[in-house]
Amino acid sequence: MEFTHLNREGMPQMVDVSCKDITERIARASGRIYVGSEVIKAIEESKLPKGDIFSVAKIAGIMAAKKTSELIPLCHNIFLSHVDISYSVNKEQGYIEAVSEVKTQAQTGAEMEAITAVLIFLETIYDMCKALKKDMVITDVRLIEKIGGKSGYYIFDE
Amino acid sequence: MEFTHLNREGMPQMVDVSCKDITERIARASGRIYVGSEVIKAIEESKLPKGDIFSVAKIAGIMAAKKTSELIPLCHNIFLSHVDISYSVNKEQGYIEAVSEVKTQAQTGAEMEAITAVLIFLETIYDMCKALKKDMVITDVRLIEKIGGKSGYYIFDE
Amino acid sequence: MEFTHLNREGMPQMVDVSCKDITERIARASGRIYVGSEVIKAIEESKLPKGDIFSVAKIAGIMAAKKTSELIPLCHNIFLSHVDISYSVNKEQGYIEAVSEVKTQAQTGAEMEAITAVLIFLETIYDMCKALKKDMVITDVRLIEKIGGKSGYYIFDE
Amino acid sequence: MEFTHLNREGMPQMVDVSCKDITERIARASGRIYVGSEVIKAIEESKLPKGDIFSVAKIAGIMAAKKTSELIPLCHNIFLSHVDISYSVNKEQGYIEAVSEVKTQAQTGAEMEAITAVLIFLETIYDMCKALKKDMVITDVRLIEKIGGKSGYYIFDE
Amino acid sequence: MEFTHLNREGMPQMVDVSCKDITERIARASGRIYVGSEVIKAIEESKLPKGDIFSVAKIAGIMAAKKTSELIPLCHNIFLSHVDISYSVNKEQGYIEAVSEVKTQAQTGAEMEAITAVLIFLETIYDMCKALKKDMVITDVRLIEKIGGKSGYYIFDE
Amino acid sequence: MEFTHLNREGMPQMVDVSCKDITERIARASGRIYVGSEVIKAIEESKLPKGDIFSVAKIAGIMAAKKTSELIPLCHNIFLSHVDISYSVNKEQGYIEAVSEVKTQAQTGAEMEAITAVLIFLETIYDMCKALKKDMVITDVRLIEKIGGKSGYYIFDE
Repeated sequence: MEFTHLNREGMPQMVDVSCKDITERIARASGRIYVGSEVIKAIEESKLPKGDIFSVAKIAGIMAAKKTSELIPLCHNIFLSHVDISYSVNKEQGYIEAVSEVKTQAQTGAEMEAITAVLIFLETIYDMCKALKKDMVITDVRLIEKIGGKSGYYIFDE
Repeated sequence: MEFTHLNREGMPQMVDVSCKDITERIARASGRIYVGSEVIKAIEESKLPKGDIFSVAKIAGIMAAKKTSELIPLCHNIFLSHVDISYSVNKEQGYIEAVSEVKTQAQTGAEMEAITAVLIFLETIYDMCKALKKDMVITDVRLIEKIGGKSGYYIFDE
Repeated sequence: MEFTHLNREGMPQMVDVSCKDITERIARASGRIYVGSEVIKAIEESKLPKGDIFSVAKIAGIMAAKKTSELIPLCHNIFLSHVDISYSVNKEQGYIEAVSEVKTQAQTGAEMEAITAVLIFLETIYDMCKALKKDMVITDVRLIEKIGGKSGYYIFDE
Repeated sequence: MEFTHLNREGMPQMVDVSCKDITERIARASGRIYVGSEVIKAIEESKLPKGDIFSVAKIAGIMAAKKTSELIPLCHNIFLSHVDISYSVNKEQGYIEAVSEVKTQAQTGAEMEAITAVLIFLETIYDMCKALKKDMVITDVRLIEKIGGKSGYYIFDE
Repeated sequence: MEFTHLNREGMPQMVDVSCKDITERIARASGRIYVGSEVIKAIEESKLPKGDIFSVAKIAGIMAAKKTSELIPLCHNIFLSHVDISYSVNKEQGYIEAVSEVKTQAQTGAEMEAITAVLIFLETIYDMCKALKKDMVITDVRLIEKIGGKSGYYIFDE
Repeated sequence: MEFTHLNREGMPQMVDVSCKDITERIARASGRIYVGSEVIKAIEESKLPKGDIFSVAKIAGIMAAKKTSELIPLCHNIFLSHVDISYSVNKEQGYIEAVSEVKTQAQTGAEMEAITAVLIFLETIYDMCKALKKDMVITDVRLIEKIGGKSGYYIFDE
């Protein structure tokens, strides 16, 4: 096992992807925020006709995915051909779940972009709801699927 | 209960903090990434003399905290007088835990900055270790303490 | 008449606001985009339950206001205590009008932030609707009101 | 007619351009700022040997074009092979007109980048002249031409 | 002697300035780029009426100063009340010299902002002239003066 | 001799690289900071086990290289396939030397990115050591090698 982001002296390094082919790559990530059933009820009862918190969180997640290489020090700046985030609400268990999908045609994958999209989506939900409740928890953020690239297909094995 | 980030028409809005006093505010957040005991062993055995992954992750978390208002749409851009992130490693249970502390003298608190610091610290750990293992999970990210501001002291009640 | 942003040699310069007092300042700007009545009808008929184009445009405008000093070379980076954007739709004449309000407690005003908010709100409307129609026009963008600061109250005189 | 930036549930979405070809694309936009003939006279009489307001505005517009995907939420981050902005002064009618041209070899066009370049050029003129006059108006900002891409040639039809 | 940017475990840290007073602080930095007398002659002979390289470099340096806390990991994000850069040309020795001045009313000084302004001014000169000559050298970049703050007055002692 | 970054009217312009081929390009730059032998001794004696100043400086330099097109006004935004920075310490003469290497597959070279990486690496060293000593000097920053592109191979001739 080897840390590709550390060189032989233990100094941080960017991976050199110069010799990799440009191929289609897709990454999907997911995560949850436990907001509690009361906050979910408040969201539903507000019957907001537009501009609701999910829309704001989605915009924030998409914009953050485009900023990933500014946030993660050794990440490459890549062109993203698609970023999408969907969500579902589990009222009984009191959580909101987000699933992101990021596509790129690049020399390196978009795993970090997919994770960033989920993290900032969930953090924005936190921000939008924190006046109601502070003890919300962001949890279970993981890469769920990765298609393309030398290391091939990956799916999270639960 | 009221969503301060949505107006009466349900449109997103920034909270107007013009009339709030400038006071000392501190926020602390925490979170974990489950990397597994093998990755932790690899980190320890690498006996890296410098520049190790925790240092890179800490830099990333601090820099991201300063960018919070660019990431979270309705967050105010505030001056941060201090950002710190500490971490601990639980080898048996295979996780790394981060705790952030952010201080500001402002009209609004630094909760989101503290959470951003933790999230990007943990995501950078993911990035640095993903060549070894992909099924790592970022989890249990929460605000643990908040000092100052009109709403007063808050501590996460487990 | 003197260009405060050019020095005696004609070189660009930032205005030195070191000696100005920190006071409450408010700026309001407005602007329109002519999209045509068919696009407005399409927006209304889509009966979008959430996440509609106005919400996305508002988020974009608020986030851009916070970025003003990165966009306008000689603008100071100031803390904004409030950014708001409201809009109205004139179906007959086929335009959407945006009005922004920005507040700050600073040594300089927030006129540019208010104008940026309107411009990027309107440009985002353009982006969201450009698959339907390309010959939309952004127009009538102006500062409508300015409160506070040495130069005192200003209102656009039509 | 369909909003490509909203999905079937009305949530905002980025257009998936993964399957589009990389082709040469050019976009041109234009716009005006009415500053009044006195400000234009002041600009001319200042006989500024260098660093004049048009140069600052041009730099601002070019830099902003490169930032477009950070400003417009659902815009793709693309490589721009050329950004240019020219301008003309109409002393009688008291306006300054800017025309931008942006080129890219990408899976999507550069219309938004061309519009951003014009908007920020004009807003910078506003900033540079606002000590002289505040009731300036940014107006008539439009896409004037678009070459390349699946939807083909477009020219603004007056 | 102690590294304020490393904690007792040798991990990087931001200095906590929460308890410092907000005071007027000024920093000045300088630096040179040796471009050779031929490039200087080319600049002079071009008799450029406007928008010359010094104006572009000055804009770049001012904008970069405002971005310092995004570039230098442990730097605080502070409000800058003034950024100025002046320059002189030494034709015989073939260099261009820049001097920056940055002012702030903050809990920490603006030394890094002053150095960033000089570095990016000089790097932009490099960029503007590199089609003519590549072996230019940026050199002698230093803090020349610092006023205000607990550590008091500092002047570079040659 | 011609300034490619100024048009015939002397206005700044971006070079149009639309017609250039996408080829492999490498650029290397170097530079020094004179910190004095006492600071070097302090660094060595601190026997910091991790996170030392070189690691922080390297991260800063890599992240800045990715931001070059935001800093240098007329620089193109390009994908970087690799950024690396190595360093050496000359204790007798009291300086630290950095050498950067940047690779890209693009229509234009990465010279400015290589120089930015060195400048911000050195400036971060300054920031990390400034509590010990203020009269450090950044010097001898130059492009040392350039491979690929129409103008061909270049090596700094001392």
